[in-house]
Amino acid sequence: MPHSYLKPLLNNNGSKIILLVMDGLGDIATTPHGKTALETATTPNLDRLAKVGTLGQTIPIRYGITPGSGPAHLALFGYEPLEYVIGRGALSAAGINLPVNKGDIAARGNLCTLDADGNVIDRRAGRISHENAAPVIAKLDKVQIRGVEVDVRQVKEYRFVIVMRGDGLEPHLNDTDPQEVGVPPLKVVAQEKRAEKAAELMEKWIAEATKTLADEPVANGFLLRGFASDPGLPSYEHAYELKAACIAEYPMYKGVSRLVGMDVLDLVGPGAQGEFETAKKYWQDHDFFFIHIKKTDSYGEDGNLEGKSKIIEEVDQALPTLLDLQPDVLIVTGDHSTPAAMKSHSWHPVPFLIWAPMTHRTDLETSFTERNCARGGLGTFPAVETMSLALAHAGRLNKFGA
Amino acid sequence: MPHSYLKPLLNNNGSKIILLVMDGLGDIATTPHGKTALETATTPNLDRLAKVGTLGQTIPIRYGITPGSGPAHLALFGYEPLEYVIGRGALSAAGINLPVNKGDIAARGNLCTLDADGNVIDRRAGRISHENAAPVIAKLDKVQIRGVEVDVRQVKEYRFVIVMRGDGLEPHLNDTDPQEVGVPPLKVVAQEKRAEKAAELMEKWIAEATKTLADEPVANGFLLRGFASDPGLPSYEHAYELKAACIAEYPMYKGVSRLVGMDVLDLVGPGAQGEFETAKKYWQDHDFFFIHIKKTDSYGEDGNLEGKSKIIEEVDQALPTLLDLQPDVLIVTGDHSTPAAMKSHSWHPVPFLIWAPMTHRTDLETSFTERNCARGGLGTFPAVETMSLALAHAGRLNKFGA
Repeated sequence: MPHSYLKPLLNNNGSKIILLVMDGLGDIATTPHGKTALETATTPNLDRLAKVGTLGQTIPIRYGITPGSGPAHLALFGYEPLEYVIGRGALSAAGINLPVNKGDIAARGNLCTLDADGNVIDRRAGRISHENAAPVIAKLDKVQIRGVEVDVRQVKEYRFVIVMRGDGLEPHLNDTDPQEVGVPPLKVVAQEKRAEKAAELMEKWIAEATKTLADEPVANGFLLRGFASDPGLPSYEHAYELKAACIAEYPMYKGVSRLVGMDVLDLVGPGAQGEFETAKKYWQDHDFFFIHIKKTDSYGEDGNLEGKSKIIEEVDQALPTLLDLQPDVLIVTGDHSTPAAMKSHSWHPVPFLIWAPMTHRTDLETSFTERNCARGGLGTFPAVETMSLALAHAGRLNKFGA
Repeated sequence: MPHSYLKPLLNNNGSKIILLVMDGLGDIATTPHGKTALETATTPNLDRLAKVGTLGQTIPIRYGITPGSGPAHLALFGYEPLEYVIGRGALSAAGINLPVNKGDIAARGNLCTLDADGNVIDRRAGRISHENAAPVIAKLDKVQIRGVEVDVRQVKEYRFVIVMRGDGLEPHLNDTDPQEVGVPPLKVVAQEKRAEKAAELMEKWIAEATKTLADEPVANGFLLRGFASDPGLPSYEHAYELKAACIAEYPMYKGVSRLVGMDVLDLVGPGAQGEFETAKKYWQDHDFFFIHIKKTDSYGEDGNLEGKSKIIEEVDQALPTLLDLQPDVLIVTGDHSTPAAMKSHSWHPVPFLIWAPMTHRTDLETSFTERNCARGGLGTFPAVETMSLALAHAGRLNKFGA
């Protein structure tokens, strides 16, 4: 549950909040004259908001901890990331809108190639094309065993999600992916006694399914990993009395949003402009809009500082579309840092900007950069406080105590 | 209990600490050129302290949480406000120095007017004058029932406090105030099984007391709310080895101070100057002085920025009286923000200044404002750390570990 002290204070006043997340936004410069992606980008709109609003920086999980995207977003959404752990299987299933309910288990799968002895010789079935993998995955979807129902759905190319629906299935199972070639897929083993039923059923299904693929020329096997069940996240509606929407291009962010009960909106167009136009189209239907920009992270991972800063400029140029909606609160931040110089996620604090023209406290900072955010009026704070600040600035929290 | 790690470290060295709280001190400006009350006020003395001492800003309860005065002061006093909840009845009783011990219950009361059918027609008895209400409340004080002792004491005008003293009385009772007219007062109902004895006794007393008022022309009934018992706060003496005094004009702040074992001093005069002269008069008798300035909050609630800033100036002008006492530590802060622009308490961080000429670390800030405090040397920290910082700067905490 998000902070339990919030719920009794909620005041659903109809105000509107936008949480704009540029994935991996935080960056580093390792010398005084070096520049981060935010410092490289020309961002007149963000700087104007920075000058008027309040800056700060967040610690995504804990000091020194480099987050994955799942926990980083859970924190932004107000769910203590050390408490709520979403298994990859559940996240992947949610990403393609495949429900995982209590008692169900989900896992991610790869098609693979097995040799005549049943050893894995290619963990990705020669990176088989989406079109060629589709009928193979459709075959898997048809394999059913007594006592459970199984759904298998293609994600992209050789990747799929499997959901086994039943009663009292526990997800504490090891991966069948051996993470190497020349050995057979691993057996499903229960890591806890209560997962033995699930292990047995899964083994049975795998045996049937493997037979079904026997005459496939390339994708004659599969590997499963990340067994997980419904993480049981309280919904935004329950926790915050917010009718929330997700605007994102990538399945994983749609997935984590669905797990907290957000409506995932169909995009009206590509890129930041397309996402912001989507917010405009559905503005009347929701109180809270989570908008996710992926490419800042992708370019960061590639070590492409220029590309990352161009995406930030694209967001900046599209920003008037959001501001024209006159949100009561606009937060601009990242889920974590992905410094281009490191080509990976990192633990560094994340720039944070809150603009709420009726309630923010203007600070001394005038530019939306890491260095300014470090001196901002909100100080350095845990990302899990983001929703508390959003609700407060939106007038959605009553006084605590008399 | 305040932080349990403090007690083994205490070193009662006789040094003296002043905690000067301007209620609702924090303010907001929502544009770069806007001004807060602190920024509007001319405060040469505070700015001199800011230049020499260390600034910071506090989060009163949690990020985004707007505190009531009770929890905000508990935090300043070092008591985790989510853990210690003081019922209004207990706070009101303490405010007029009516003891509430273990097993007793206290509630706030209003005289009211009932019609012939026993329905409430005026929840405040026509706002009966203090003088006219006094004899009615004195009648209530005389009503006694077997098994408990009851004290009823006037607070102001139609308002009173009732304390029922007995054995094992539990305060989990609903209010009798229906919060509307045209209906009778509510019955006292136990919200938990263990409160049934208290509910029965209170119902019995109410029946007797209501009979006694039957022939009153206006105040022929009463309504009770906020049933509470002793919150059991460890005293300042026990927690900090401090002989503490409270200097405040308003009952509620005297109340919360009494609940932590402070001596409430009689004021030698009105306003900041009167309060500071009071500290001077009793300087030898105590180690710790909590001085409370109410009107910064009152003007904030009225939306009167000018009035709020004038009170700050009044405090600034009187400050030499405090400084002449040569305290070892002087903290100047608020309990929460009450931005004049919002006419209410808010969640914004609160300006904090510590001046301890032998031990503070001078930072780069030179003016006591919200914007400077956000950049101050203490950073942004929970208000519940105030006492740890006070004790440390006063040399009252030994080293932790070897």
